[in-house]
Amino acid sequence: MSSFRRFTDLAESLPPTVPFVGPETQERTMGTTFRARLGANENGFGPAPSVIEAMSRAAPLSWRYADPENYDLRQALSGRIGLAPERFVIGEGIDGLLGLVVRLIVGRDTPVVTSLGAYPTFNYHVAGFGGRFVTVPYRDDREDMDALLEAVRREDAPLVYLANPDNPMGSWHGADAVVEFATSLPESTLLVLDEAYCEFAPEDALPAIAALADMPNVIRFRTFSKAYGLAGQRIAYGFGTAGTISRFDRVRNHFGVNRLAQIAAVAALADEEWLSHVKSEVRRSLQRIGEIGRDNGLEPLPTATNFVALDCGDAARARAILEELAKEGVFIRMPGAAPLNRCIRISAGPAPEMDVLAEALPKALARIA
Amino acid sequence: MSSFRRFTDLAESLPPTVPFVGPETQERTMGTTFRARLGANENGFGPAPSVIEAMSRAAPLSWRYADPENYDLRQALSGRIGLAPERFVIGEGIDGLLGLVVRLIVGRDTPVVTSLGAYPTFNYHVAGFGGRFVTVPYRDDREDMDALLEAVRREDAPLVYLANPDNPMGSWHGADAVVEFATSLPESTLLVLDEAYCEFAPEDALPAIAALADMPNVIRFRTFSKAYGLAGQRIAYGFGTAGTISRFDRVRNHFGVNRLAQIAAVAALADEEWLSHVKSEVRRSLQRIGEIGRDNGLEPLPTATNFVALDCGDAARARAILEELAKEGVFIRMPGAAPLNRCIRISAGPAPEMDVLAEALPKALARIA
Repeated sequence: MSSFRRFTDLAESLPPTVPFVGPETQERTMGTTFRARLGANENGFGPAPSVIEAMSRAAPLSWRYADPENYDLRQALSGRIGLAPERFVIGEGIDGLLGLVVRLIVGRDTPVVTSLGAYPTFNYHVAGFGGRFVTVPYRDDREDMDALLEAVRREDAPLVYLANPDNPMGSWHGADAVVEFATSLPESTLLVLDEAYCEFAPEDALPAIAALADMPNVIRFRTFSKAYGLAGQRIAYGFGTAGTISRFDRVRNHFGVNRLAQIAAVAALADEEWLSHVKSEVRRSLQRIGEIGRDNGLEPLPTATNFVALDCGDAARARAILEELAKEGVFIRMPGAAPLNRCIRISAGPAPEMDVLAEALPKALARIA
Repeated sequence: MSSFRRFTDLAESLPPTVPFVGPETQERTMGTTFRARLGANENGFGPAPSVIEAMSRAAPLSWRYADPENYDLRQALSGRIGLAPERFVIGEGIDGLLGLVVRLIVGRDTPVVTSLGAYPTFNYHVAGFGGRFVTVPYRDDREDMDALLEAVRREDAPLVYLANPDNPMGSWHGADAVVEFATSLPESTLLVLDEAYCEFAPEDALPAIAALADMPNVIRFRTFSKAYGLAGQRIAYGFGTAGTISRFDRVRNHFGVNRLAQIAAVAALADEEWLSHVKSEVRRSLQRIGEIGRDNGLEPLPTATNFVALDCGDAARARAILEELAKEGVFIRMPGAAPLNRCIRISAGPAPEMDVLAEALPKALARIA
C-alpha cells in the first residue's frame, strides 16, 4: 500500500532493519514458546516481591499521568548515589536515553565512535539521526579504550560510547582505566558510559561516583532492567553535571515515563535485601552456565554481568548452535560482529531454565556434529 | 555547574520551557495535595477492574522486555477497528507518537501548520526538530479548517495538525467536514488527526474508518489515556496506510512500550461494559460541571470530550480563578492563547471531586470580586 512521500531525506534513507528481533516474534514463527528465555539478559529471578506489591497497589491509580519531573525517583537516586537530584535524568530505559543523547549531539555525518560489535541500539539511534560510524575492534574481547581514544582524536568526534561491563562479551575494565580514559578525552567529546550491568560487576570495575561526576562531558547510564528485574517497565537513569543533564529537558517526552515504573523503581531501590539475593542467584547461575559450557566443550569467557559468552570456535558454529538451541526451546543470542561472533551469549536464569539448557545443549551439538 | 558545549546548534537553540507543569510540581510548591484533580483531562473513573486485575496478574513478569512488535495489541486493534495489524503503530502515548511523526517529516525551518492555542506538546516536538510554526486562529472556538487548508497551501507545508474533538476547547467538527478537509489537502501534506477524545464524541463527529484509511497522507492517533483511564501507562496508537505506518519502525524505540501497558491496553479493549460505564459517568460529570459553572455565572461551552471549557469573560479573570481554585485544592488548567484563554478547562471526575469544585468555585470567585 502506498506511503506518504514527503518524509525527510534522512528518514527516507533509513533501513527497515531493527536492532533486535524479540523472542515473541520467534515464538510466533515457531508456533511454540521457549522453555528457557536466556537471550535478552533479562533477570528471570524477577523484581522483588515488595516491588510487585507496590505495583499492584498502584495499579488502580494508572489513570493519572506520572509526575513529569520524576521527583520521587530522583530523590531516591540522589540519596543512593550521593549527587543532587538535578543531576539525574529518568528515561524509558537506557535505549530511550541513548536516543535522546544522540539527538542532542548527532546530525548529518557527525562522527560517532564506538566498538565494532558493541550495543546495536546505540548504533540504531546514531543511524537514525544521520551520524557517521567510526568503529574500532575489540581487543582480547574487551573494548579497546586506547583505540577508542585514538579514533575520537583523529575524527574530532563529539560522542563516544563505552559499556563497562561490556555487552555482548561480559568483559570489563578496572575503574582506574575507565577514569583515565574519561579524563583523557577532549572536553569536546561526550562519553556515554553505559553501566547497565554495574550491579553485577566487581567493585573495582566501577569508577567512584566522585571520580567522574563533575566532568561535563561524561554521562553514566544505569537501569532498572537488569539487576532490579524490571526490563518490561522501561525505566533507567543517567547522571552527570547538572548543566549537561539539564539539556535532556529540552527534548525528552516529559510525560513519557510510566507511572508504575516510577513507583516500581523507587520500591526497587529500597529493597537492598532482594538485590543481594538476586546477585547471589545470578552468581550461582553464571557458574552453572560455565559448567554446562565446559561439559560440552564450550569455554566460558570471564563475565562481570548477568550473562556468559561461550566460545564456540567460529561464527558458523556459534550460529548453528544458537539455531539448534532455539529448536530445543532455548532462546539465546550471539554477538553480531567478528571476532566476537564466535561466541553465543547466555543469560543467567533460575535453575529450571538452567536444567533445560543442560539438557538441550548436548542435543544441539550432537545434531551439528 | 558547567555543561558539555558541543550539542547541535538546534539543541543549543531550544528553550528550557516545557509544555505542561505537572500537578505534582504545584503540590510540592504548595506543600499540600489537591483535593480535586481536574486539570489534565485524566479519567478519575479509572481503568476497568478487569484491567487492574490483568496488570496485577502480569506484574511478576515485569522482568521480561515487552514484545517489540506489540503483536497482541495490534491484533486486538485490528479486530476492533477493522484494519490489518500492520496498519497500526503503538507508542508511548500520543505524545510519543507525535514526536516520531514530527521527526520523520520536520527539519530546520520546515513549515508546520496548527491552530493558535492547540496542543502544546505537538508544538514542543515541532520546535524540538527545528520546524517553523504557521498558526491560524480558532474561529468560534473551533479549529478553522478552511484557514488551516489555506495556510497549508500558501506555505506548502508537509505537516498539519488537527484535533477532533478539540483540546483545549472541547469543540468538534462533523465527520463530513473532517473528511472534506482531509481530502482537500495536497498529497504532499500529512494530516495528523488527533482523536484522543474520540470515545466521548458523538458518532457523527468521527469520520468512518474507511473514509480516510487508504489515504497515505492521513494518520489518526488514539489513546488509552482518556476513556480507558490509563494515562499513567503511556500507551496509544496511530493508524493509516501500511506504507506510511511502516516508517515509524525506522525511528521508534522498538522496546520502548511498557509490557504492563500492552497487557492493560488489550484488557481495556476487551471490556466494553466498563467503557460504557465510564462514558455515562463522564456525561453525568460534564453536566454537573456545566451546572456548577452556570450557578457561578460561568457559561460552559459545548463539549465532545471529557472536559468542559467555562467562559470566564477574559484571560485575567480566568487566570485569577484558576489560581484561586488551586488555593482551594482544585487542580484545573486553561488554554494558553487568546481568545481561548478567557476560559478555564475542567475535566470530568467522580462526584466527590465535583462536590469539592462546587464548594471551591464560589469561594474563589468571591475572593476575586
